[in-house]
Amino acid sequence: MGALHDGHRTLIRKARRLANPNGSVVVSIFVNPTQFGPKEDLSNYPRPFDQDLLLCRQEGVDLLFHPSTSGMYAADTSAMVREDSLSKVLCGTSRPGHFDGVCTVVSMLFNIIGPEVAVFGEKDWQQLAVVRRMVRDLQIPVKIVGHPTVREADGLAMSSRNRLLTPEARRMAPRIFQAMSAAALECGAQGRGVTRVRDSLIKSLKAIPSADLDYAEIVDEETLAPLKSFNQKCKVRIMVAVRFGSVRLIDNLPVKFPR
Amino acid sequence: MGALHDGHRTLIRKARRLANPNGSVVVSIFVNPTQFGPKEDLSNYPRPFDQDLLLCRQEGVDLLFHPSTSGMYAADTSAMVREDSLSKVLCGTSRPGHFDGVCTVVSMLFNIIGPEVAVFGEKDWQQLAVVRRMVRDLQIPVKIVGHPTVREADGLAMSSRNRLLTPEARRMAPRIFQAMSAAALECGAQGRGVTRVRDSLIKSLKAIPSADLDYAEIVDEETLAPLKSFNQKCKVRIMVAVRFGSVRLIDNLPVKFPR
Repeated sequence: MGALHDGHRTLIRKARRLANPNGSVVVSIFVNPTQFGPKEDLSNYPRPFDQDLLLCRQEGVDLLFHPSTSGMYAADTSAMVREDSLSKVLCGTSRPGHFDGVCTVVSMLFNIIGPEVAVFGEKDWQQLAVVRRMVRDLQIPVKIVGHPTVREADGLAMSSRNRLLTPEARRMAPRIFQAMSAAALECGAQGRGVTRVRDSLIKSLKAIPSADLDYAEIVDEETLAPLKSFNQKCKVRIMVAVRFGSVRLIDNLPVKFPR
Repeated sequence: MGALHDGHRTLIRKARRLANPNGSVVVSIFVNPTQFGPKEDLSNYPRPFDQDLLLCRQEGVDLLFHPSTSGMYAADTSAMVREDSLSKVLCGTSRPGHFDGVCTVVSMLFNIIGPEVAVFGEKDWQQLAVVRRMVRDLQIPVKIVGHPTVREADGLAMSSRNRLLTPEARRMAPRIFQAMSAAALECGAQGRGVTRVRDSLIKSLKAIPSADLDYAEIVDEETLAPLKSFNQKCKVRIMVAVRFGSVRLIDNLPVKFPR
């Protein structure tokens, strides 16, 4: 979606490492209207295209795909891709239709570009899980690779939306990462149940000034189902969404258990 | 879906003519459960695989793709392709979800096989229109080619479902084609309005013994919207669905106007 930052830069570098020696690295920049809800920030979404172009040039990107909306969607467009399981929880609850728009545009980008590998940031973990599911279920011949979240020095996950925060909200936003990190440590502590860790995480997030908690969940990182106990044989991830005024930030953190 | 007949044979031959000199012709045979409704004839659908294999061998098919259901769909499959405009009329009215299943399996087959060209029979005209729309809207890099309906000597459109007809129904079924042909001629007759032609078509179809009319429409062949007058600048097609007991037959015919 553009408004590229150092998180995107690491995705581009990862794509270069994964590409064949004579392969190409393609970046798509398209603020996709079908993944925004009617009350969401489509018109407000940052579009600093000249800076994006510069970053792509610096990174030696071979092709920058920057279509117009009418080049992507016919006025009477009526076909779409949807995912009806992982899309319905977490961000799907407050953003109905969002992941249908994501699935549709990602499959279109795959159809147009025909990549062998596609790199997605783990910051949007639910999006990555939904895309992986779509690729599995529709047997799309693209290898999906995630890349760990890149953070500012104070721990805030890099996001194009960070620049929309007020100075006060920007000062408070790193407390999301602090709360998640504390919860991840607690998960490893002997005898701590999931409910207790989650309650304590919610308490920390609710204590952030000028922030409204959207959700905080401890989930199976593949199915996104809420964890019932730490004995389940799955990889665990903490998932959080917080609003500062009209700016909604999401973040997530893997939980590592001592062996 | 297999149960191959001479209609399919012409599709295979067309694919061979369209293929590159060193290209391959692939036939898929998969009775796709997701396009059958809960009360439809999935278990009853004919599956004469050995005969199908023989026909493919005779025609020099390079690859016969015949997956299992579990090879296509994971038990917890949750992603699908849908089309929400052309799918909602005609057969879509009595078969809700049918075209979602068709779109999903066709896009999967495209993802797995990666064809340059795909040939579809015009007998399933609505399916062809929906697939064209899906390919347009999702920008799928496959050229869709239709092939005119192949008919028995008495005019009945070839269909895998014909073998399920009772002898009595089989004798009556050609009257579908006769009624459509008469209507197509009437369309060209000066001063005949769409409503009058359609009424007369419906009357002829309702007069077929042991048949129940599902629908009879005169439509824009691309959008499938009912025609309002014969002066519209679109190609016109007569679309019909008739039931003989539990066997549902569909057919269609293009309308040619005198210049």
